Amino acid sequence: MTLVPHLIGGVADAPADSRSANIMNPATGETVGRVPLASRATVESAIAAAEAASPAWRATPPAKRARVMFRFRQLLEDNADRICEAITREHGKTLEDARGELTRGIENVEYACGIADLLKGEHSKNVGPGIDSWSEFQPLGVVAGITPFNFPAMVPLWMFPVAVACGNSFILKPSERDPSASLLVAQLAQEAGLPPGVLNVVHGDKEAVDTLLTDRRVQAVSFVGSTPVAEYVYATGTAHGKRVQALGGAKNHAIVMPDADLDNAVSAIMGAAYGSCGERCMAISVVVAVGDATADRVVAMLAEQVRALKVGAGTGTGCDMGPLVTRAHFEKVKGLVDQGVAEGAELVVDGRGLVVPGHEGGFFLGGCLFDRVTPDMSVYREEIFGPVLCVVRVQTMQEGMDLIDAHEYGNGTCLFTRDGEAARYFTDAIKVGMVGVNVPLPVPVSYHSFGGWKRSLFGDLAAYGPDGVRFYTRRKTITQRWPTGGVREGAQFSFPSMK
Amino acid sequence: MTLVPHLIGGVADAPADSRSANIMNPATGETVGRVPLASRATVESAIAAAEAASPAWRATPPAKRARVMFRFRQLLEDNADRICEAITREHGKTLEDARGELTRGIENVEYACGIADLLKGEHSKNVGPGIDSWSEFQPLGVVAGITPFNFPAMVPLWMFPVAVACGNSFILKPSERDPSASLLVAQLAQEAGLPPGVLNVVHGDKEAVDTLLTDRRVQAVSFVGSTPVAEYVYATGTAHGKRVQALGGAKNHAIVMPDADLDNAVSAIMGAAYGSCGERCMAISVVVAVGDATADRVVAMLAEQVRALKVGAGTGTGCDMGPLVTRAHFEKVKGLVDQGVAEGAELVVDGRGLVVPGHEGGFFLGGCLFDRVTPDMSVYREEIFGPVLCVVRVQTMQEGMDLIDAHEYGNGTCLFTRDGEAARYFTDAIKVGMVGVNVPLPVPVSYHSFGGWKRSLFGDLAAYGPDGVRFYTRRKTITQRWPTGGVREGAQFSFPSMK
Amino acid sequence: MTLVPHLIGGVADAPADSRSANIMNPATGETVGRVPLASRATVESAIAAAEAASPAWRATPPAKRARVMFRFRQLLEDNADRICEAITREHGKTLEDARGELTRGIENVEYACGIADLLKGEHSKNVGPGIDSWSEFQPLGVVAGITPFNFPAMVPLWMFPVAVACGNSFILKPSERDPSASLLVAQLAQEAGLPPGVLNVVHGDKEAVDTLLTDRRVQAVSFVGSTPVAEYVYATGTAHGKRVQALGGAKNHAIVMPDADLDNAVSAIMGAAYGSCGERCMAISVVVAVGDATADRVVAMLAEQVRALKVGAGTGTGCDMGPLVTRAHFEKVKGLVDQGVAEGAELVVDGRGLVVPGHEGGFFLGGCLFDRVTPDMSVYREEIFGPVLCVVRVQTMQEGMDLIDAHEYGNGTCLFTRDGEAARYFTDAIKVGMVGVNVPLPVPVSYHSFGGWKRSLFGDLAAYGPDGVRFYTRRKTITQRWPTGGVREGAQFSFPSMK
Amino acid sequence: MTLVPHLIGGVADAPADSRSANIMNPATGETVGRVPLASRATVESAIAAAEAASPAWRATPPAKRARVMFRFRQLLEDNADRICEAITREHGKTLEDARGELTRGIENVEYACGIADLLKGEHSKNVGPGIDSWSEFQPLGVVAGITPFNFPAMVPLWMFPVAVACGNSFILKPSERDPSASLLVAQLAQEAGLPPGVLNVVHGDKEAVDTLLTDRRVQAVSFVGSTPVAEYVYATGTAHGKRVQALGGAKNHAIVMPDADLDNAVSAIMGAAYGSCGERCMAISVVVAVGDATADRVVAMLAEQVRALKVGAGTGTGCDMGPLVTRAHFEKVKGLVDQGVAEGAELVVDGRGLVVPGHEGGFFLGGCLFDRVTPDMSVYREEIFGPVLCVVRVQTMQEGMDLIDAHEYGNGTCLFTRDGEAARYFTDAIKVGMVGVNVPLPVPVSYHSFGGWKRSLFGDLAAYGPDGVRFYTRRKTITQRWPTGGVREGAQFSFPSMK
Repeated sequence: MTLVPHLIGGVADAPADSRSANIMNPATGETVGRVPLASRATVESAIAAAEAASPAWRATPPAKRARVMFRFRQLLEDNADRICEAITREHGKTLEDARGELTRGIENVEYACGIADLLKGEHSKNVGPGIDSWSEFQPLGVVAGITPFNFPAMVPLWMFPVAVACGNSFILKPSERDPSASLLVAQLAQEAGLPPGVLNVVHGDKEAVDTLLTDRRVQAVSFVGSTPVAEYVYATGTAHGKRVQALGGAKNHAIVMPDADLDNAVSAIMGAAYGSCGERCMAISVVVAVGDATADRVVAMLAEQVRALKVGAGTGTGCDMGPLVTRAHFEKVKGLVDQGVAEGAELVVDGRGLVVPGHEGGFFLGGCLFDRVTPDMSVYREEIFGPVLCVVRVQTMQEGMDLIDAHEYGNGTCLFTRDGEAARYFTDAIKVGMVGVNVPLPVPVSYHSFGGWKRSLFGDLAAYGPDGVRFYTRRKTITQRWPTGGVREGAQFSFPSMK
Repeated sequence: MTLVPHLIGGVADAPADSRSANIMNPATGETVGRVPLASRATVESAIAAAEAASPAWRATPPAKRARVMFRFRQLLEDNADRICEAITREHGKTLEDARGELTRGIENVEYACGIADLLKGEHSKNVGPGIDSWSEFQPLGVVAGITPFNFPAMVPLWMFPVAVACGNSFILKPSERDPSASLLVAQLAQEAGLPPGVLNVVHGDKEAVDTLLTDRRVQAVSFVGSTPVAEYVYATGTAHGKRVQALGGAKNHAIVMPDADLDNAVSAIMGAAYGSCGERCMAISVVVAVGDATADRVVAMLAEQVRALKVGAGTGTGCDMGPLVTRAHFEKVKGLVDQGVAEGAELVVDGRGLVVPGHEGGFFLGGCLFDRVTPDMSVYREEIFGPVLCVVRVQTMQEGMDLIDAHEYGNGTCLFTRDGEAARYFTDAIKVGMVGVNVPLPVPVSYHSFGGWKRSLFGDLAAYGPDGVRFYTRRKTITQRWPTGGVREGAQFSFPSMK
Repeated sequence: MTLVPHLIGGVADAPADSRSANIMNPATGETVGRVPLASRATVESAIAAAEAASPAWRATPPAKRARVMFRFRQLLEDNADRICEAITREHGKTLEDARGELTRGIENVEYACGIADLLKGEHSKNVGPGIDSWSEFQPLGVVAGITPFNFPAMVPLWMFPVAVACGNSFILKPSERDPSASLLVAQLAQEAGLPPGVLNVVHGDKEAVDTLLTDRRVQAVSFVGSTPVAEYVYATGTAHGKRVQALGGAKNHAIVMPDADLDNAVSAIMGAAYGSCGERCMAISVVVAVGDATADRVVAMLAEQVRALKVGAGTGTGCDMGPLVTRAHFEKVKGLVDQGVAEGAELVVDGRGLVVPGHEGGFFLGGCLFDRVTPDMSVYREEIFGPVLCVVRVQTMQEGMDLIDAHEYGNGTCLFTRDGEAARYFTDAIKVGMVGVNVPLPVPVSYHSFGGWKRSLFGDLAAYGPDGVRFYTRRKTITQRWPTGGVREGAQFSFPSMK
Repeated sequence: MTLVPHLIGGVADAPADSRSANIMNPATGETVGRVPLASRATVESAIAAAEAASPAWRATPPAKRARVMFRFRQLLEDNADRICEAITREHGKTLEDARGELTRGIENVEYACGIADLLKGEHSKNVGPGIDSWSEFQPLGVVAGITPFNFPAMVPLWMFPVAVACGNSFILKPSERDPSASLLVAQLAQEAGLPPGVLNVVHGDKEAVDTLLTDRRVQAVSFVGSTPVAEYVYATGTAHGKRVQALGGAKNHAIVMPDADLDNAVSAIMGAAYGSCGERCMAISVVVAVGDATADRVVAMLAEQVRALKVGAGTGTGCDMGPLVTRAHFEKVKGLVDQGVAEGAELVVDGRGLVVPGHEGGFFLGGCLFDRVTPDMSVYREEIFGPVLCVVRVQTMQEGMDLIDAHEYGNGTCLFTRDGEAARYFTDAIKVGMVGVNVPLPVPVSYHSFGGWKRSLFGDLAAYGPDGVRFYTRRKTITQRWPTGGVREGAQFSFPSMK
């Protein structure tokens, strides 16, 4: 059984930690590896390694750091199959979905390849007579990222490529449930030329997280996970003087207008709701249908397609969905479906009884579709993170928007319409950070930035893209004048030694 | 005796608060006014007024909001004398120095006049086939600023012009020691056309601050003050889910190199150390002289000029310095000078015995100059915020830089030299946010941003300038595609009603 | 009778030129002034004055140059009535329309107020080890603008505020038909604080233009006028090594889709077609109606409103249109209407017989509306620059777009629709520089830039806004490293004199 | 003997042109290939191929176009040896120098990899109530580049990567003297995934150039070459309505101040003056020594190192310089040296008699060093483009700067000093586009832009970097509002079909 080691100071070997955890294959329910859970001492050694690597890396010209990113990008392409297999084995998502995740992650590396351009400061001549001023964006030093199970390759790639391209040293604490892909990606970055210690990986749980949040040498922390933990990370990290960006949960609504292209909308919603079993912070989990006529058609079309979903091991071909990530999570999601029924939602499609032949030990749940969900129900209020889609019926677009604005989360949302004015009003007024118009998963591309509003993001700056560069650098402003009548004038007539 | 009222929802009248405080004229020691100390309920009414004004103001086109700033700028120019008199009366600084403060503040208004340009988002065509994406920077809603006594006009002008130009409503809690100038400036902004409730002023102490830090309607807090309070504001505000930028204390060193133009350097240091009695977070409080020969010359030149400083009421002509702001602060500064002597620093010029004829009740302290200060002394470690300059002697530039980097603060610093290489090495490597080369007070101009490093700034984004715009706005990213084969094609042949 | 002088080197007095021209009031047909026509020598004296003023103005800090713009903006507001009266008297447009022109011009001054921010260069640290590089945007020196009769205040304000804010000296050659408003605006800029010689005005004809195009001291020329002249200016100026931007003619089409809000569309088109008598390079002169049903309704609605147009002297109240600018232009426009009838277009509304009581000598032409215009007709091919609107009927949106793309001009265009997809396809594919969606006059705001495509603009950079700043500045790139082991190291031990 | 074909529409095969030219190896004087000289018809077929490829390539998302650049970059690395051998064989420069050229070129490809970010337009919400506006930078269509013999790989890479990344189709006309490397590089770009016709190569002379300058389908032309031809290209291209950037000749001065680090300065000047035989537009060809003491030392140090230069075939190891490019050029350079002697310059080192054993047929000229050159001499006025360095003696820095500013060229320059004030004064005031401080070849890195001043550049925008993106795109500004009360409101109650 494989042990997934830490990567500290360029070395990945047997850890000294006394605690460890099992890694499961959710498609079979079997243990496929073990991962150490880092002690405070282990994390501190990673911090020390990162700090030691910092001065030389910081002084490396950005264009040279970019060249490592160019090689890293190529290595990710070359090793895509290995990475995706690791994702599927430990997370459960289909190989195709894993490839989609990796592609998005590679785009963040491509963005980091432009770091020399992205780090430009602003230069002002003559802010006063003979006085110039300019800004530089210098690396912070040692920074850390704490990433979730649902994107073991992509979310780390949101963070460390731009962070190290900016000249920082990085400590990644990936999810301990599916750590192999994260480690593999980090090892490829090192193979691409990152000096030892510039990128470190430590596995662990709360002890590791708390060490990163409280050690004074760590200058900044990026976090992606659930809102309660995000809030804890933000409050704890900031109380220790760090800059923190903490991305939390979501409940993403899609409003379907009567004039929408329903074929397109339903097809888009299917992928956005059930892809990766709904274990995405940008998944659509609520459809808001405007008008009962719209709702009736949308529910009928969805029901047909949900029933037709192919669920199985992610390694199989032609699967739409794999299993949920753990047995505990499976039980939690199933319990929420039970509760939805109990609270009076209409369960149009029930995926609870699904058995995948040959994978009876896997954590499979079939697609579930609720109609006539109301805002007081737990299936509406809570982030389910499973293949469960709720349809809420409203009479007007404004009623749908009021629902969205009243929800505690504000990560993503989408409007399906053909109408320019509806789109403009929606995108302008809705209190959500990432907004799609006929785009169900409006994840910003790598050269824009990812960030929700309300309790979906704690911090000022969003993840990756321009905000990523800003988050991982510290502004320095220089104001300069030169005394006249010195060497220059002297130089006109004589050698300095004669002065 | 004047009562300085709150300004809430456009109205400045008698407050309901049960508590109040005296305002003193530090040049005479006399009480010149009273200021209410807002209760939680009073602050909440200001928050409510700001929230009520928010939707209409947010929807006002930026260019129209800018036009208010153009008028505001003109009103500040027209009322400069009144504002400066209020500053001098309650703070003590000279009228000329007050005018300098106001000018810097007006420059921030000038920057806010460009808000339509500054708010531009980034637009990307074809992020995918037929898909476009762009970012918008939307106002946060209700935001607050808490400002210190030492710049009662300028620091509020660092904050609210850009905040309201971005479309936010603002609550200003100025220092309760010299609130008149802050209120006056806010009233002029309202006179310029800010709708009632867009800009509110509440006076107060910890109760007011805590209300702003914990009320869920306040989205962001900007703070300038001492480091312990900045740390409290940052930890408390962030624990309540807000974005916070908290600027704290400083101990700004100037390194004087042997090749410096000493006449220029000493003259620059005099103004930077003793101007406004040293009550500036960018004041030079430590001179690091490289080589004993340099030190001897610098100390001799400084001593002569410190002895010649003219100290008196700020309303008088020809004064270099006024009084300290309060009796308590006077006692604290004087105590630190006593302690410096006790710890072995060489007090070259002693300003402790100063009496200003006709102003015997004022809080006057003459300029003090210490030589041979060492890093363990309290006069070196603490931010004195008084007319006390410490000279530390080192043998190399690197030794001086190590001192600076070891200090807990990292606000400003300056190097005096003629040498390009020294300047480049210093500005690159020094762990300080605002760096001058032959510029003793490297306060960034209004179109750059103000921010220290280390324990001088808590938060990701600096004050005013580009970072100010970013701090007071929230990124929204829209991703948009349109279904084909819909209205457009239909439109080719027929009216929609015929479909 | 007023003589409108040149403004050269800060002085506006009697010119030495032997030639001059009459200025007419087009509402009465009477001569209201005279304007000198500058000889080559006169223009050269203006160039010399501009060159003399250049070094000091270039060295003035941008923020200080901006302050002149702030004052200039205020003076324009304060003198709006005088300026608008001059426009109406010499050009003929209504006072309200003149005020609209001036407002747009003032917005360009507001943009120039932000010049300190807009001039920022890009700073790169460590382009190689220890090597930094940055860009500066330096003024060109002496630049010139040649402006048309139809916007005697606005088009000069497109050019000189940003040009002088960038640090250039400027020579304006306004239209000799309505020079008073241009001169007045320039005089206010000087009153605001532009040093003598920084802004000069010379009146004239081809001799003046050719002098500006060929004198080696003039670094750049901005031109707005007809396409044949624009082409001449571009070829001549560039052949003399200058940078040139030359904006020419237009034939702006509005496509009306069947799903458009017709009330809104027709109302918008009325203003865009007949406002200022159609003498605008952004005027809508062709309506492309998609489908005969749309066309029938649009033509009926337009006809009713064209018949109701109130035409009279621009000084009167309640007028929609004033006279054409000159008798010659009146004859030309009327001749084109005659030709349209002769070529078979259906003249739905005929404005040729209009007489304005009390202004029988004025150059008034009533609104004309053609239906069933085809692309081979001269009224379709030529820029009429009069109150003549042509309706072309097509069966599909694509057919309308093909028409637009086939026309030699590509200045502005507009689509009326409610449909997002139609708008996106149109704005993406159409070969026109300024595109409106339900906006009939898509003139970019002052913080964007104005420029057509095809034969509507010769040159790389558009007018005003960001392109204006780029056009009026020259990029300089500095790459800097410092030798080590010099003064800095020496400074550690000894005084320079000992070396 | 190899025939170097055109590359048109993706196909490189035997051309139909009746004319052709020999390609020589300058190290041996032997003919090593032939190159066709394209007729007008051949160039027109390339233009047609480019135009045909344009619509699909323009519609390809920028990020996907960038991916071609990522692969192209890798292919350039993988084929570096082949490319460099071709450069050395046909141009003569050393292999190491060829590798330097290629590396710089690859950096331009790296910049083009960031095109998705670089193409971002500016988005403004609410330019008026409910009105938004944004800019797009759309490709021009078919554009052309005409490149010189001295950098057969790098200068093409300055142009076409960014041009095609912007979505344009490109026609490259490289120098007919050393076309192989240019073709090879283009073929690798095609291998990387550029669709056929997006990048075409035509060889030729004036007939080809004139076709590109006059064909109406070509939208823009980039040129690098001598000033007389640059001027012709600029005037001709612009007279045909195109945008043109034409980079011409240079005479780059290095000022050496008395306080300079002379070892560093002389070493830097040696490489900059004699590298690639001086056949670089950024070569240092004039040293301006301030003070006779400085001059004496600099001349002595230079003379010693010039005498030690190793000259031989570029394929040999340890060579500093190869031959000049053609016999004609060799004769021209030698003639200028003769003339310099005749005019009274002091020829300190005479390289005219050099014979390289085994390469007696090669076009070798040894390094030549002139002292006491004066501005009236032809060796000072003309661009020699050979291994000839002139020393001019001045008494002050200002005198040196006046010399530079009086020269017709303004491409590059450099100051050697340790003094900050001298550097600042020089970089601010000097009328040269690319300025080095202790950097002898201040060629801007790929993320800045390359452009001289005065008669070294005709046009508004510099080459590559940000200006490259701007040059190869056309601004389009969209202004959009949506009518209210339409589909959106209707959608609240009913299906569109019911309306």
